[in-house]
Amino acid sequence: MSGNTIGRVFRITTWGESHGAALGAVIDGCPPGLSLSQGQIQAVLDRRKPGGQRFASPRQEADRVEILSGVFEGKTTGTPIALLIRNRDADSGAYEHLRSVFRPGHGDYTYYRKYGLRDHRGGGRASGRETAARVAAGAVASLVTEAAGIQVLAYTVALGGICISRGSPGRIRRESLENSLYCPDPEAAARMLDRLAEVRQQGDTLGGIVEIVVRGCPAGLGEPVFDKMDADLAGALMSIGTVKGVEIGAGFSVADMLGSESNDPLSPGGFLSNTSGGILAGITSGEEIVMRVACKPIPSISRSQQTIDAEGHPTTLSIGGRHDVCVIPRIVPVCEAMVQIVLADHLLRQKAVTP
Amino acid sequence: MSGNTIGRVFRITTWGESHGAALGAVIDGCPPGLSLSQGQIQAVLDRRKPGGQRFASPRQEADRVEILSGVFEGKTTGTPIALLIRNRDADSGAYEHLRSVFRPGHGDYTYYRKYGLRDHRGGGRASGRETAARVAAGAVASLVTEAAGIQVLAYTVALGGICISRGSPGRIRRESLENSLYCPDPEAAARMLDRLAEVRQQGDTLGGIVEIVVRGCPAGLGEPVFDKMDADLAGALMSIGTVKGVEIGAGFSVADMLGSESNDPLSPGGFLSNTSGGILAGITSGEEIVMRVACKPIPSISRSQQTIDAEGHPTTLSIGGRHDVCVIPRIVPVCEAMVQIVLADHLLRQKAVTP
Amino acid sequence: MSGNTIGRVFRITTWGESHGAALGAVIDGCPPGLSLSQGQIQAVLDRRKPGGQRFASPRQEADRVEILSGVFEGKTTGTPIALLIRNRDADSGAYEHLRSVFRPGHGDYTYYRKYGLRDHRGGGRASGRETAARVAAGAVASLVTEAAGIQVLAYTVALGGICISRGSPGRIRRESLENSLYCPDPEAAARMLDRLAEVRQQGDTLGGIVEIVVRGCPAGLGEPVFDKMDADLAGALMSIGTVKGVEIGAGFSVADMLGSESNDPLSPGGFLSNTSGGILAGITSGEEIVMRVACKPIPSISRSQQTIDAEGHPTTLSIGGRHDVCVIPRIVPVCEAMVQIVLADHLLRQKAVTP
Amino acid sequence: MSGNTIGRVFRITTWGESHGAALGAVIDGCPPGLSLSQGQIQAVLDRRKPGGQRFASPRQEADRVEILSGVFEGKTTGTPIALLIRNRDADSGAYEHLRSVFRPGHGDYTYYRKYGLRDHRGGGRASGRETAARVAAGAVASLVTEAAGIQVLAYTVALGGICISRGSPGRIRRESLENSLYCPDPEAAARMLDRLAEVRQQGDTLGGIVEIVVRGCPAGLGEPVFDKMDADLAGALMSIGTVKGVEIGAGFSVADMLGSESNDPLSPGGFLSNTSGGILAGITSGEEIVMRVACKPIPSISRSQQTIDAEGHPTTLSIGGRHDVCVIPRIVPVCEAMVQIVLADHLLRQKAVTP
Repeated sequence: MSGNTIGRVFRITTWGESHGAALGAVIDGCPPGLSLSQGQIQAVLDRRKPGGQRFASPRQEADRVEILSGVFEGKTTGTPIALLIRNRDADSGAYEHLRSVFRPGHGDYTYYRKYGLRDHRGGGRASGRETAARVAAGAVASLVTEAAGIQVLAYTVALGGICISRGSPGRIRRESLENSLYCPDPEAAARMLDRLAEVRQQGDTLGGIVEIVVRGCPAGLGEPVFDKMDADLAGALMSIGTVKGVEIGAGFSVADMLGSESNDPLSPGGFLSNTSGGILAGITSGEEIVMRVACKPIPSISRSQQTIDAEGHPTTLSIGGRHDVCVIPRIVPVCEAMVQIVLADHLLRQKAVTP
Repeated sequence: MSGNTIGRVFRITTWGESHGAALGAVIDGCPPGLSLSQGQIQAVLDRRKPGGQRFASPRQEADRVEILSGVFEGKTTGTPIALLIRNRDADSGAYEHLRSVFRPGHGDYTYYRKYGLRDHRGGGRASGRETAARVAAGAVASLVTEAAGIQVLAYTVALGGICISRGSPGRIRRESLENSLYCPDPEAAARMLDRLAEVRQQGDTLGGIVEIVVRGCPAGLGEPVFDKMDADLAGALMSIGTVKGVEIGAGFSVADMLGSESNDPLSPGGFLSNTSGGILAGITSGEEIVMRVACKPIPSISRSQQTIDAEGHPTTLSIGGRHDVCVIPRIVPVCEAMVQIVLADHLLRQKAVTP
Repeated sequence: MSGNTIGRVFRITTWGESHGAALGAVIDGCPPGLSLSQGQIQAVLDRRKPGGQRFASPRQEADRVEILSGVFEGKTTGTPIALLIRNRDADSGAYEHLRSVFRPGHGDYTYYRKYGLRDHRGGGRASGRETAARVAAGAVASLVTEAAGIQVLAYTVALGGICISRGSPGRIRRESLENSLYCPDPEAAARMLDRLAEVRQQGDTLGGIVEIVVRGCPAGLGEPVFDKMDADLAGALMSIGTVKGVEIGAGFSVADMLGSESNDPLSPGGFLSNTSGGILAGITSGEEIVMRVACKPIPSISRSQQTIDAEGHPTTLSIGGRHDVCVIPRIVPVCEAMVQIVLADHLLRQKAVTP
Repeated sequence: MSGNTIGRVFRITTWGESHGAALGAVIDGCPPGLSLSQGQIQAVLDRRKPGGQRFASPRQEADRVEILSGVFEGKTTGTPIALLIRNRDADSGAYEHLRSVFRPGHGDYTYYRKYGLRDHRGGGRASGRETAARVAAGAVASLVTEAAGIQVLAYTVALGGICISRGSPGRIRRESLENSLYCPDPEAAARMLDRLAEVRQQGDTLGGIVEIVVRGCPAGLGEPVFDKMDADLAGALMSIGTVKGVEIGAGFSVADMLGSESNDPLSPGGFLSNTSGGILAGITSGEEIVMRVACKPIPSISRSQQTIDAEGHPTTLSIGGRHDVCVIPRIVPVCEAMVQIVLADHLLRQKAVTP
């Protein structure tokens, strides 16, 4: 049944397959009167562009976004905003040999089991290309969050086992991230690039960790007990294909803490620490929201793998073609987009609570 | 605005405060014709009972559940099932000194910032007591999952920094968990109990990690791209107050893997490994679903803490009273319940997909 | 699947069968800080009380409402408000002969076809008693609408073919409706009462028409293109068991009009007529909202009727017992409640639109 | 906030303005494996085409539908189906004089009050053109209903005060409706055409009544107590801009009936009458579903009308341009589409109920 919509008041519906005619998003519930142009969305979309970066796929997706509705004379009208991105450089023939073979680590097998058929071309709906629609929609969401003074920043904290040397998330600036890996630590980034080159040679791929920090978020957002801010963020981030883990604030390390360590004391000037990651009892505290997601290695590897075909017979598979070595850095803007979308929804939801 | 409902086809709405008249749940969308009695729900509810266990709160909650609707002559009718649990042993006076003080690590401050007022008695809606309604609803959900041959098992894998010595989740049996910590490793459990006793002496509290495994789940459940199985599970588990992190399958360790390590090869007999944790591209693969959640220490500690009152003045606070040292083991049945609820919803959702 | 919830931001879930333990409602999304007592809800609930009115059922339902959550020290807290009404005077034995016979005009046959089983006692979930929960929930909704200066008024305009002699809905005052039929025309009401007595003698029942007028509603409520104000009102009113038709403003008579007649001219002082019934393009215009619903005769008649039993064999049926002759006047507060619920939801929804 | 989605399991989201770049729909939740081509949708869409019919607008909308996703090698895949219809023949300049004047009977005033701004070109989102997206989506819905053996038929029963001479809805065949008014009574149709010509001369417009009949619908569809079949149908039909009244079965005439008249007796061979219109207690009975909607006259008339401008100053307005005299016959396929959409949703919802 339907499952391609996220949000309650500010709602995003995405559609489209990797090698279909197009992909896109409908944003329903955007407030009226906000300035919006195709150029704004395009600029955000270009941040996930595959070309021009050393370890990214050479496929030349134009990824030109077109606004089809909901904007009149440069302003949002309050009606649904439809965004269209045509697929241009889609070489479907290259996937013909995958028509009846299930690639390990991909959704091929599970889509087939769910639907009884599948669009095998480039992963169809399960392709990472689907995230282009999320990023475009996130650009619209950022109109709402920025109007509320909120900044969302995602960056690479680990790749292929190499971690950044880090201080507080509070000290990271967007300018420091304008490098090929969206990584705030140049020294670590250099080693990550070396590791990427090495693994590319081996026909293998790498995973990593992305951190997202939200600044300027007002206290009071989140709707207990099921639509809590952390629950909605976790669901939204886990809906990204590559993500296998989500943590908020101190995350998994809280398991080893004492209560006297994990409780953040309050002072007249605010909280004295931020172990909670800006969310208490599912509601924002006014502190920075801090999240991390674990990204698995891209499953398309050129090394030979053991698998089966649609008839269940064993076979081996080596995936050539134009594939990234790591979802980082392309996934970074996707993480930002999902957080923007959740925050925009909750900012508008809170309007129905405030007297 | 509203946020107390979870599920799309099989829907749970919970209500109630820690020291109000009662708490409960409405289960809407349960299929007709399933056998259900108060005793069945009570048995599940008793698994989170605080009394009778050494490190649990001595508060004697009767927690008697009453079925008010939706069951006729021992069978579900397809109409909403309303469950009621009266609050009996609620000593509200004990909370009077907390009326205008924000306890660190609790939702006191954020509820106040969200709603402008709050029920300070025992944490109100933010109390862990709310999870009793979830567990009762989960017992109804298990009618649906068990009819499909699914088993859900949660257990303690870490507490206060002590981890179990573990083999595969596949080897854990429910009988091995019938101890005071729902822990499959008796030797580790003994050390956990020692650690709990020690920290209780210090007026402090501990965190831990719970693992949940799902067996017998058919392939094909989950609705891309936002209502994926892993996204819904992550959202549901993160909606539990104590949870700060969720991971599926190999979880955060995928960040350090190569693609050739994280891909699970397929053979005619099934997958040869389960790094994915039973979910690929948001859809179940037929393998065991494996999840872990990180639980923070209970924030109510008797050690003195720095905080502020409702006027913003600094003060210190020492919380006495009847509190657990760790949410484990009480949170274990809650994790099971949330997973049961998500699975029941997706089992019924899949019926609209299957031709 | 689930279908017992109405509203998006202000959400009502009802539950309960006619002869079960209780019935009730959960109101999720009510803003915090509003004064609410059991007495307030009880007073509204008493308006649909069966006893004490000549043509109403003599069944002595206590219908005492209890607030179980969401209210603290006399104020709503923003958390779910659970309402409970115990069933007391339920003579289930009187329905035993209906266990396997389908009453014409009732939901017996369709519930059986849908669910494969049914609670035959008093109509189960399909009973008019379910509307008690709606009325109680409507009393909570009226906190939101009254805070916005909105008044909702329902009254009888036809019963058993007798119509009121009427001027504009704008002239009707609540005081004029405080009679046994909620009818603003005393002369027509007297004839209606005679007709009711006559038909009761014949063992038959009557239908009628209820009009609902909303005053003080601000312009701008309603969410095109599917959640329009008129669409949501029509759906909510048609969900009342007795209703077979809904019309807004001039309603069915627009079919015979010219455009120059049905268009309401605008002047600096407002609209010069209200053919539209206060809604244009699905959005409120600031004029009075005017609706009418057609109510079918109560299907429980003591005259002999042709029907079948669960095995499909023909039989005849004569329904004795404690039944009303007409849903009017009891349905009048139910119509008010449904309109209150829809308006409360849209008032809060509009907060997410207004800049 | 968001309001452009209808359905729970089978969900339609429409978007687009009359004079924007395009309009379209996303259909989420369509089962996989159904045959679907652009030609199929186009054929249905052509039924509401304005050109080629005497009393329809001469605007030459190409209205070519394009399927952008969700279909692979001629079969639905279970993923969202995005439909695109480009606006081509949009003469926006013709609307410049309406930029700051509110047309009586249109949504101009209410959109302005709701959103604070509006797209004045051709009514923007409130234009009847929006219904093209509904009709296209309805064509997809009909894949689901036809697979279940359901036929939906809408036709004109009144126009400009002229009613058809009618027997039972059960005798109407689609072949008899293939005329310029979708009217099953040729003699009445001739008089309707005369009336349309006459009123066109006067610069005025006409209303009418459309009846919709559903055949072959299984018993058991509809989800009490709020998502009843009649409630969802009423809401969906009332969401069509022109509709001011909806009735089911005997509709408003039930108000004058006795219970012994309105109850439909059951026999071993089925119901002996169909006063209920195929729905009892919100659930389909297996009989024909019969509905009627009242359509108001098109508000764009060339006769002079009194109105105000955006500053509130009085002015007069005479609307020239390319406008229909009556929404009939163009609205007929729209009514069919809305009913198809609701039925498809409920057919799939019922799958979660049936054991």
